Amino acid sequence: MSRIVIALGGNALQEPGKPATAEAELSIVDQTCEQIVESIRLGNEVVLTHGNGPQVGRLILQNEYGAALTPAMPFDVCGAMSQGMIGYHLVQGMARAMRLSGVKRQAVALVTQVRVNGLDPGFANPTKPVGPFYTQKEAQRLIAERGYAMKEDAGRGWRRVVASPEPLEIVELDAVRTLVEKGFIVVAAGGGGVPVVLDADGDLNGIAAVIDKDLAGERLAEGLDADTLLMLTAVEEVYLHFGTPSQQALHRITQEQARRYIGEGHFAAGSMLPKMEAALRFASSKPGRRAIITAPLCASRALCGEAGTIIA
Amino acid sequence: MSRIVIALGGNALQEPGKPATAEAELSIVDQTCEQIVESIRLGNEVVLTHGNGPQVGRLILQNEYGAALTPAMPFDVCGAMSQGMIGYHLVQGMARAMRLSGVKRQAVALVTQVRVNGLDPGFANPTKPVGPFYTQKEAQRLIAERGYAMKEDAGRGWRRVVASPEPLEIVELDAVRTLVEKGFIVVAAGGGGVPVVLDADGDLNGIAAVIDKDLAGERLAEGLDADTLLMLTAVEEVYLHFGTPSQQALHRITQEQARRYIGEGHFAAGSMLPKMEAALRFASSKPGRRAIITAPLCASRALCGEAGTIIA
Repeated sequence: MSRIVIALGGNALQEPGKPATAEAELSIVDQTCEQIVESIRLGNEVVLTHGNGPQVGRLILQNEYGAALTPAMPFDVCGAMSQGMIGYHLVQGMARAMRLSGVKRQAVALVTQVRVNGLDPGFANPTKPVGPFYTQKEAQRLIAERGYAMKEDAGRGWRRVVASPEPLEIVELDAVRTLVEKGFIVVAAGGGGVPVVLDADGDLNGIAAVIDKDLAGERLAEGLDADTLLMLTAVEEVYLHFGTPSQQALHRITQEQARRYIGEGHFAAGSMLPKMEAALRFASSKPGRRAIITAPLCASRALCGEAGTIIA
Repeated sequence: MSRIVIALGGNALQEPGKPATAEAELSIVDQTCEQIVESIRLGNEVVLTHGNGPQVGRLILQNEYGAALTPAMPFDVCGAMSQGMIGYHLVQGMARAMRLSGVKRQAVALVTQVRVNGLDPGFANPTKPVGPFYTQKEAQRLIAERGYAMKEDAGRGWRRVVASPEPLEIVELDAVRTLVEKGFIVVAAGGGGVPVVLDADGDLNGIAAVIDKDLAGERLAEGLDADTLLMLTAVEEVYLHFGTPSQQALHRITQEQARRYIGEGHFAAGSMLPKMEAALRFASSKPGRRAIITAPLCASRALCGEAGTIIA
């Protein structure tokens, strides 16, 4: 039996281009859960984490659009709301998939904070665009009134940008471990976790930031002493020279290879790069740990070493 | 040591008439948590549940208002989001209050479903108004397009009404118990829980309904074999002939008295009546159990029998 942290990417939670209704999202979540239930059926301890980019984007849109009627919630609170929403859907999807597979376990979702350093260099140069597009005039008003950092986005308008700091600590780690050890399938650190910073009094306070969900998943996997970090994304394998005639799929690679390929700039920032960084961090954190990057459909085979890109 | 389920009413979470900003809500939550931390300091096991009426109302407002931009989430999903939001604030508030009191415990919030009966008589006659007001024309469109039940609300416009079914089962009860037994302060069944019904396949599916949070708290308290159900509300004690010159505060009452006062119509539906019903149910569910209704400021004294209305 091994302990596996599975990080679900955006495509595991919603279909691009389709209307983002609750029914459509639940339908994709159901399919994802059917793919990952096999790893539980085989007796592994499974912990789920997930992205929230499109979902929290829509929440912010609704909050900003409705601001004349009721105050918009800040970024950290929107993150907590997205954990409630996606966690609820994943709990339902896992329950259904486990019933279909005859697995007698229960999935539960935990509101999860992740501590970051308020002095993280990311805060000095926020780069992660979030929420709706604005005109230049609206952007200037938001900079003046709310102190937002705003950037022009490739001719499409202005967007708020926030920092993407390093995850330091899964605040609810002990609770996750307690539930995992009792046999629960835990959904935690959704959207990379609600970002919080420690103040001088010793209290954790929310902050506007986006923690990369694969790096948060890596932190969770280390904290839980997991054997495997499985990152599910849109592609079955990681490629070198991706999108060129000479593209080449990676099957099993060493930490040294991973480090070299990252250095050579093979992986796109905000896409495969954080996954490869999370994979390398996890594989190098303790002997015997491995990270896998693959698509939901290949999850079971990848865990048996028969698909995906495995970094060990 | 006893096990106490504390149900927090609306006034424990936000100040009526003030703008419902995250800062204002967190400030009230902090005050509430300072009041209830004493019961933890004395060594009791405490589980928190809470209402979500105003919060989920604002979420629905934002969802409906933003529907031209992004699909509105259904009622059950809004409930799950409100659990994320309020759970996050309560976890922060409790952490701060425990630090100030020197209590070394951790609060965690769990997304919680509550099973109801799809044939509950409430569904035949929905009475609980939720979300924004509409014109008659808009209401007719919502009835035709979405099958909503809509009712005219005292000349103020039309509102959607949903059922308020009986809570049958806290779906995540075992997870709550696991965490409580490990010493966590668990926030669960927020807003009365996300209402779900069992379908013919054996899956739980969300449904548009509002479960009374005190009745859900009672179900949680029974399921956890708690000794005390403490309901915190706007008044320090329950009154007979409330709001008349002959109003009379109740201190300690028996189950027989509670049953009689309920029968005599002393308590307002949707207000003190469900609290008294929850109190009577809990007190009569097993010898030695007691229910308390009081204000947050009196919580500690009420637990010592020195304030509030105690039903035993």
